[in-house]
Amino acid sequence: MNVTALPKFPPAPAEKTFEPGLLREFSSRVLQTFGVPAADAELAAGVLSSADLRGIDTHGVARLPQYVEMLAQGRINPRPRIRTVRETPATATVDGDNGLGLVVGPRANELAMEKAERVGTGWVAVGNSNHFGAGEYYPLQALPRGLVGWAMTNSPPQVAPLWGAEKMLGTNPLAIAFPALEEPPVVIDLTTSAFAFGKVEDAARRGISIPEGCAIDRDGRMTTNPHAMLDGGALLPLGSDRERGAHKGYCLGAMVDLLCGPLGGASWGPFAPPFPAHLPPPARTVGKGVGHLFGAFQVAAFADPAEFGRQVDDWIRTLRATRPAEGTSGPMIPGDPNRRAEQVRRREGVPVIRPVVEALERVARQTGVPLG
Amino acid sequence: MNVTALPKFPPAPAEKTFEPGLLREFSSRVLQTFGVPAADAELAAGVLSSADLRGIDTHGVARLPQYVEMLAQGRINPRPRIRTVRETPATATVDGDNGLGLVVGPRANELAMEKAERVGTGWVAVGNSNHFGAGEYYPLQALPRGLVGWAMTNSPPQVAPLWGAEKMLGTNPLAIAFPALEEPPVVIDLTTSAFAFGKVEDAARRGISIPEGCAIDRDGRMTTNPHAMLDGGALLPLGSDRERGAHKGYCLGAMVDLLCGPLGGASWGPFAPPFPAHLPPPARTVGKGVGHLFGAFQVAAFADPAEFGRQVDDWIRTLRATRPAEGTSGPMIPGDPNRRAEQVRRREGVPVIRPVVEALERVARQTGVPLG
Repeated sequence: MNVTALPKFPPAPAEKTFEPGLLREFSSRVLQTFGVPAADAELAAGVLSSADLRGIDTHGVARLPQYVEMLAQGRINPRPRIRTVRETPATATVDGDNGLGLVVGPRANELAMEKAERVGTGWVAVGNSNHFGAGEYYPLQALPRGLVGWAMTNSPPQVAPLWGAEKMLGTNPLAIAFPALEEPPVVIDLTTSAFAFGKVEDAARRGISIPEGCAIDRDGRMTTNPHAMLDGGALLPLGSDRERGAHKGYCLGAMVDLLCGPLGGASWGPFAPPFPAHLPPPARTVGKGVGHLFGAFQVAAFADPAEFGRQVDDWIRTLRATRPAEGTSGPMIPGDPNRRAEQVRRREGVPVIRPVVEALERVARQTGVPLG
Repeated sequence: MNVTALPKFPPAPAEKTFEPGLLREFSSRVLQTFGVPAADAELAAGVLSSADLRGIDTHGVARLPQYVEMLAQGRINPRPRIRTVRETPATATVDGDNGLGLVVGPRANELAMEKAERVGTGWVAVGNSNHFGAGEYYPLQALPRGLVGWAMTNSPPQVAPLWGAEKMLGTNPLAIAFPALEEPPVVIDLTTSAFAFGKVEDAARRGISIPEGCAIDRDGRMTTNPHAMLDGGALLPLGSDRERGAHKGYCLGAMVDLLCGPLGGASWGPFAPPFPAHLPPPARTVGKGVGHLFGAFQVAAFADPAEFGRQVDDWIRTLRATRPAEGTSGPMIPGDPNRRAEQVRRREGVPVIRPVVEALERVARQTGVPLG
């Protein structure tokens, strides 16, 4: 192990660079061909576009073909009646009526933010939803409103609990963002596994190994062979093993699953619905669809907002001034990489790799919506 | 790395076993000799006693000498006027008036729970406090009231951000607990570092190495030499290095620090006040004392409580039935180890190691309160 090691997987070369507005319009028009109302399609396309702009290539337009597949198979409801099924001044439970998570998520997040503006904090649990895009999208909406925003979702099983030999939990991301005053905000978006499933798939395609501490084979033995993970193995929780704290990563994944599943009536654990659509259905139905949890804190409810902003500025500058570890350029502030990607991509466009361009071209042919 | 590896540090042999009520009474009476009011001393002793019963030996009566040192030096206010300085229906900000965290914490947590009972959720940020004991104590109070409880605190710097060469964040624990119906509750209490500082100290005393991926030396190089960490080095965040997700552990530590520092007016990052008292003061004062955040969700605000309990029961039984990794007895449910410790200790008493017994005997001589 080496503290300065960088990911072993350089991104594949971009096939084509797109103007961001073009990809956004393409997504919106494609969704509308499946009966998604224009306003919902615009909302959903905005969630994807935000990920494309901010360098989260796995969660932008690259996912559109999977949403399309789910819609085409009738597995996602294009015109959901999203309902608040329980409500208090500071909380709500929302049933997403099996709509696009990209629509259900923003509406539930809006409700959490409105509650925070009224009574200091708002928390909304969501069931009967689907994949909601990149987690950071939601707290990013909270920032201009003077709120600290939270978002979590559960997801299909990929991760073994510590000392388990099978997939029982999703990578279950947690996102939170803090507004600063003069500095850019602190934006956190993390999964609770040690490694990303997409990186395992990538290593398998390239015929290279994955780092130790990231995955197990079907018997629960640690493996660096990506095929051994893909063939009935699982990802390991953040922390990798007991000595380095994998019980903590397991607990974080459990926390997100319990907050997103039973609270909002969604499914959970190994029974969380698969995504994309061609994967086999879960063994048992324990709740409705995918679940999310959105939260918001009104900064002014807790502190003087200007003083809070000054403190966050000071925090950012202090952490940025950390003495660098040998051979590194020093720590980043959470949110730095995505913000830098956004600066470049707003100017230069969104690079899209060849397999994604091809998949989008297939969607274009299928729907009759031209790609650019 | 080996998924089945257990900690290399067997606990030191117990010198003496105490009846739990006796240790609790000793703590309460000792605190009262420093002017802590009886009700506050009882509350604080209850927090320590809970840790002793549940096997969290680092956070029970073993800490009493450090609280005593702080009180004796006048660095903790024995009779704080704990004030709510901002309040909305669902939130509050509490100034702990530099009181014992063991008193300020329970009072602020009570406020969060009362708010959750009234408006669905309650969140209380606390500044000007001190070390609040074991994190799990707080959500444990929420369980019998039908609440999901949350607690976080920041703490003195021990952890380097990824690619940093110095201590900038505390181990910053996060605790949360979920009530079940027939099963025992899910109780999560984790720090955001890969390894515990106490284990580094222990390895140094024993002249053994620490596992790779737990600590760095003063130049930010990974080290297995505990003395290299103690001599100007730092702990690593959960995840250990970039490939295995240490940026996520860093983000978690940052999240807890930002929620506990600027929101409640407390200090943060490298400037969080040291504990115990003999450590040097921070370079700069950026806020007041240690900060905490307490939260509570009323289960009935989100879901039918019986159905929620059945779902959590099902979750627990499902995860417990995970196929075990080779060479292990299979995954535990978060909270299992502490619950099992409590079952044994309620029956057989609390084992206390020799150095702690000696420290308590010194406290007994200093205060005139007999130890058993």
